[in-house]
Amino acid sequence: MAKILTSRKENYAQWYNDLVIKAGLAENSSVRGCMVIKPYGYAIWEIMQAELDKMFKATGHTNAYFPLFIPKSYFSREASHVEGFAKECAVVTHYRLMNDPNGKGVVVDPDAKLEEELVIRPTSETIIWNTYKNWIQSYRDLPILINQWANVVRWEMRTRLFLRTTEFLWQEGHTAHSTREEAVAETLQIIDLYATFAEQFMAMPVIKGTKTESERFAGALETYAIEAMMQDGKALQSGTSHFLGQNFAKAFDVQFTDKSGKLDWVWATSWGVSTRLMGALIMAHSDDKGLILPPKLAPNQVVIVPVYQGDQELDAISETANQIKEELASQGITVKYDERDTQKPGWKFAEYELKGVPVRIVLGPRDIENKTAEVARRDKLTKETISQDALASHVKKLLDDIQQSIYNKALKFRNENFHRIDDYDQFKEIIGKRGGFVMAHWDGTVETENLIKQETKATVRCIPLDDDNEPGKCIRTGKPSKRRVLFAKAY
Amino acid sequence: MAKILTSRKENYAQWYNDLVIKAGLAENSSVRGCMVIKPYGYAIWEIMQAELDKMFKATGHTNAYFPLFIPKSYFSREASHVEGFAKECAVVTHYRLMNDPNGKGVVVDPDAKLEEELVIRPTSETIIWNTYKNWIQSYRDLPILINQWANVVRWEMRTRLFLRTTEFLWQEGHTAHSTREEAVAETLQIIDLYATFAEQFMAMPVIKGTKTESERFAGALETYAIEAMMQDGKALQSGTSHFLGQNFAKAFDVQFTDKSGKLDWVWATSWGVSTRLMGALIMAHSDDKGLILPPKLAPNQVVIVPVYQGDQELDAISETANQIKEELASQGITVKYDERDTQKPGWKFAEYELKGVPVRIVLGPRDIENKTAEVARRDKLTKETISQDALASHVKKLLDDIQQSIYNKALKFRNENFHRIDDYDQFKEIIGKRGGFVMAHWDGTVETENLIKQETKATVRCIPLDDDNEPGKCIRTGKPSKRRVLFAKAY
Repeated sequence: MAKILTSRKENYAQWYNDLVIKAGLAENSSVRGCMVIKPYGYAIWEIMQAELDKMFKATGHTNAYFPLFIPKSYFSREASHVEGFAKECAVVTHYRLMNDPNGKGVVVDPDAKLEEELVIRPTSETIIWNTYKNWIQSYRDLPILINQWANVVRWEMRTRLFLRTTEFLWQEGHTAHSTREEAVAETLQIIDLYATFAEQFMAMPVIKGTKTESERFAGALETYAIEAMMQDGKALQSGTSHFLGQNFAKAFDVQFTDKSGKLDWVWATSWGVSTRLMGALIMAHSDDKGLILPPKLAPNQVVIVPVYQGDQELDAISETANQIKEELASQGITVKYDERDTQKPGWKFAEYELKGVPVRIVLGPRDIENKTAEVARRDKLTKETISQDALASHVKKLLDDIQQSIYNKALKFRNENFHRIDDYDQFKEIIGKRGGFVMAHWDGTVETENLIKQETKATVRCIPLDDDNEPGKCIRTGKPSKRRVLFAKAY
Repeated sequence: MAKILTSRKENYAQWYNDLVIKAGLAENSSVRGCMVIKPYGYAIWEIMQAELDKMFKATGHTNAYFPLFIPKSYFSREASHVEGFAKECAVVTHYRLMNDPNGKGVVVDPDAKLEEELVIRPTSETIIWNTYKNWIQSYRDLPILINQWANVVRWEMRTRLFLRTTEFLWQEGHTAHSTREEAVAETLQIIDLYATFAEQFMAMPVIKGTKTESERFAGALETYAIEAMMQDGKALQSGTSHFLGQNFAKAFDVQFTDKSGKLDWVWATSWGVSTRLMGALIMAHSDDKGLILPPKLAPNQVVIVPVYQGDQELDAISETANQIKEELASQGITVKYDERDTQKPGWKFAEYELKGVPVRIVLGPRDIENKTAEVARRDKLTKETISQDALASHVKKLLDDIQQSIYNKALKFRNENFHRIDDYDQFKEIIGKRGGFVMAHWDGTVETENLIKQETKATVRCIPLDDDNEPGKCIRTGKPSKRRVLFAKAY
């Protein structure tokens, strides 16, 4: 069979792109930098959304919806925020087209110019805090725990499907609190929630930590992130949770009366994950045959493929297949029975490997005779023959096992590519050739961070939360370091 | 207790606006014509979305996502489409802001002008058919049955919360078929689906019909709509399903090879409902005390309010309340127990009436003693005392009864305000004074339609599908009419 994808070894970036397109996950649209999320890709995103949404609601959050447009002047209110986002904004300047007076299609109507331009939200802190101003007077109005599922636009120059697109889908939580402690606790609660989601649903181990000042969200006092390792050893930031202090409350004049009657600015957090998670999911697990999906995020957990000659054989197989499908479905397993006669079994096998369906069941005439089925697992590409009586319980256990195996494999890979390094030559060697995560000492200055980036392309991904905080000497300058930080090349 | 809302009789439009704002459903944002959908309003919309999404998937549709931006030139491709939408488009012309050289905040960077302007989608036929072009070669690639949940922007001059906003949320289905018959069948299937949703979930009777040429979707051969009657006798179009023929396939050059090897243009449909449904839901049922929600769309179907003096009484009541809550929840009923000590019971009663919670359970010390509870229904504002043993089964039946009663009441109201009229003076009298739906003969010309609109403000809402098609004479011109059509003033 012809090779469908470029191999990872040959060209990792090309492999990723091939996979996204050929598995029907997404494609580039005719609008520069914007993607079309195709039905199969969207189905995976929908499962992610549903699981995250449940977790948000279980921790007391509710959803709402704020406008797509933000008045330009709002961006000037929070000083660092405008620096972080103004450079990459889509700007609406007019509200009408008209027929071209020269008869060539349509043109922008010059009479329909907006008094104040509107920016398409790159993130919604400003419009939301401008709204919260009217919702908050007293401590009784707090906390506000709101999340929004929305599209946002950041004008990216170099885009890659899912990883970096001009428009992307995300959720953004925006919470308001009466105390610093409560806001910090919220920020931490969410980064823990994201880590749990990444590990339990995406089967992707992550490292939690804080960002350095230069990588912090524009307007935040502290940014927490989860960082995952891709199969090329690079890091992918998969979710962030920001402690915003009172910055946005001050910028939008949001004060409240506390229990003692004293006026104070409101404390804020914001946090988000996006369709970038799709890129992480794909790159963390998949192989040269295609996608490998953790069962908990697979739109179809099982596919049944009949192998037959003639309608009579197919009829007998279909009867059994539909029984199996029903039995599995009754256990909450999603099953597709692919009885199309337009494609050969071999084609279907390759197709479902490409699409990462965790379990494939093949039924042939002999299986009907022997009351057996061939069960193959996508992650390890192994197969075995199982009695039909035991099939449902076997598949249920198998799905759990696949979920765990995929996680274990990713964790093993990360551990193998995780280094504690004290020598800069060795650091450069690892970052440059083998890739991976390097825990090394750093003197804490932006200058050194930039120097290391220039020399190695590695950046400080985060200052891990659960490390030992042992002091040492900066790997580049030899100056004192309070603790090791996590370096890697990053997406 | 102070009156919370303007009464319907006093000022229907003001009543609606008061209700939307005071029940916490939505509010105007600082961006002209754009609303903030607040958590309670969004929770209702989420239930609508979930139920509709289930119905779409049960009929074979999948979700996907297409770009927010549409290149300006796409609008010129389908002649009537540009006429219908170009006048109300938000246009992105630049992709960067910069610091004002004069130090006054930020300005649009003149160097960051787009070569071709981008329109924020007012609807996505053009970008989607430009994409389908690459997906469709043969009949084997058909049908495509895709839906998208998205935000869209139409630059409205007069806006009203939910009913008409510059940005709104909706779903838009876009399907592609190999035959006319199949596309027509899809269009009809969806208008039936919308009618079922309106009647079974929103408890809102609707009339299905086709639109006249002047009210047809820009680019459609036929538009089907569902029309509902609001309490002021006006019609609200609540969903549309368009048979697009081969118009968009021709505009975007989408051809396929049929089974016989012949090339043909692909047949199309599109269909949508939006957050406008929230407006319909509110106006169809609510009263001067607030929202009346059909239980199937209520975020909280039941609220339990304790009436007590002192912590000891509250403790005893809370124990029972939590047991009841658990028992109801185990039957799939959503319950809120409001034990806040910051508000009095009377305040809570008014609040939950305002928010339309279908069933209120009140527990006082005597109820604990007698093992009873006071059960009130929101729609009829009646209450009765029920034994706690019988409470769960009673509430379950009560919720079904409320759902049906709300529907029956709306249907009765519509029937009382539904007229078959053959005299133009009488027509004007009804439309002008009493309001309501009028089935009358019309000669089928745009001129007469416009004349009647000018003289009475009534428009042809639709040509109902299930009427008797009896010929007659036009109510305005006396010219021959093939059948009666539905007239009303409309939102």
